Amino acid sequence: LSALELSARALAALPEIAPGDDLAALIAAAGADLRPGDVVVLSQKIVSKAEGRLVSLGDVSPSERARDLAAALAKDARAVQVVLDESADVLRAERGVLITRTRHGFVCANAGVDHSNVPGDDVVCLLPRDPDASARRIRGGLGGEAAVLIADSFGRAWRLGQADVAIGCAGLAPLDDRRGTPDAEGRELIASVDAVADQAASAAALVRDKAGREAVVVVRGLERYVTAEDGPGAAAIVRPLDEDLFG
Amino acid sequence: LSALELSARALAALPEIAPGDDLAALIAAAGADLRPGDVVVLSQKIVSKAEGRLVSLGDVSPSERARDLAAALAKDARAVQVVLDESADVLRAERGVLITRTRHGFVCANAGVDHSNVPGDDVVCLLPRDPDASARRIRGGLGGEAAVLIADSFGRAWRLGQADVAIGCAGLAPLDDRRGTPDAEGRELIASVDAVADQAASAAALVRDKAGREAVVVVRGLERYVTAEDGPGAAAIVRPLDEDLFG
Repeated sequence: LSALELSARALAALPEIAPGDDLAALIAAAGADLRPGDVVVLSQKIVSKAEGRLVSLGDVSPSERARDLAAALAKDARAVQVVLDESADVLRAERGVLITRTRHGFVCANAGVDHSNVPGDDVVCLLPRDPDASARRIRGGLGGEAAVLIADSFGRAWRLGQADVAIGCAGLAPLDDRRGTPDAEGRELIASVDAVADQAASAAALVRDKAGREAVVVVRGLERYVTAEDGPGAAAIVRPLDEDLFG
Repeated sequence: LSALELSARALAALPEIAPGDDLAALIAAAGADLRPGDVVVLSQKIVSKAEGRLVSLGDVSPSERARDLAAALAKDARAVQVVLDESADVLRAERGVLITRTRHGFVCANAGVDHSNVPGDDVVCLLPRDPDASARRIRGGLGGEAAVLIADSFGRAWRLGQADVAIGCAGLAPLDDRRGTPDAEGRELIASVDAVADQAASAAALVRDKAGREAVVVVRGLERYVTAEDGPGAAAIVRPLDEDLFG
């Protein structure tokens, strides 16, 4: 194999995104200059905003469970209610942190609900309802030759700091299963499934200005993982509950 | 801020690495063409080989505990003994998989011990004894202006596939703590510590040929995280046991 190379480039800042905005059109207008095989990485926040996944806390009536959890965690009971509404299961509720499994199967803090970079003091932003469908729709809007990945920053077990992962994708192989292929010594590789989409999200995170609006990154050099069909999406990355050895 | 860009480029294949080899000299000979601010990412395997971190299973006498675990997991008791010797704690032993906390504090399968890409059928490769010290030494050999990162592929809780993380680094800020800095709306960012070194390792993994010997990748565009001093290393990424909410 010849030496491989990858680049990740942040696009110019997008305008503040409002419900109904056409992200594909805005990306094209931001000078994306896409080639077939590029991977367009969007922050979850702009996708959620375009889809109107915003909740005014003034409209939320917290349940007793939300009020109890909020008291224990020193949080706003209405915000806790929103998190519970987005969650299938609560894994931890300690020291001000609520770790849940979302209805999509993602394990993260506050079910991915937050209020950073969201206009309005009492408005929180939810994850897209079906991020793989969001990615497919945006991919279509971009003409279908580039792949689309929707990224969010998740905390990790046992390691400090957040890393971006793929919560949705279309046209990108989320995993590269190399089990059974030989190593340099001609022996079988074991347990080698590469988290392609999550690592592409992490590469993009290194060039995205999270405090600003440079929310779209184009990753070039992953053509071998970009497919004509939209593929299984990031749902394929969720480890089945009964297979989890790490969690 | 202007648009940021990052590149990751795999160097030409290195020769098979043997104990005592000078990795810095081999990297220079492979045409690294380093600039100040570059991050040189090495696979754990070549660092371990250069440091002679290889064990012949024929030299290992398994304890009773290793024999019991090996029987339950259908593994070689001598290999299990090597894993136990490298571990501070066993977290899971199920379905053929042994998840431990290494003496460095890393949580991963088999304490990072494996035999892929290792010559000899009965030889296994251990993680470097002190990967941050390894990174500092290699950085010095490269002249000190580039940062050095040693990467390994770890499984993750709740998500399928392996992602590369930093097990050692020198001259690279392992974490970017932005807590307290404002978001685009002028409000405080919360819980925003970016896993810079782990994400750089993941970016590099996307261009490394894991089945071959293209084990070194140069990442350019992270100058703002590259420091004159060697810094705290990847040890700073290990989440203190009493702070772990995710695991």
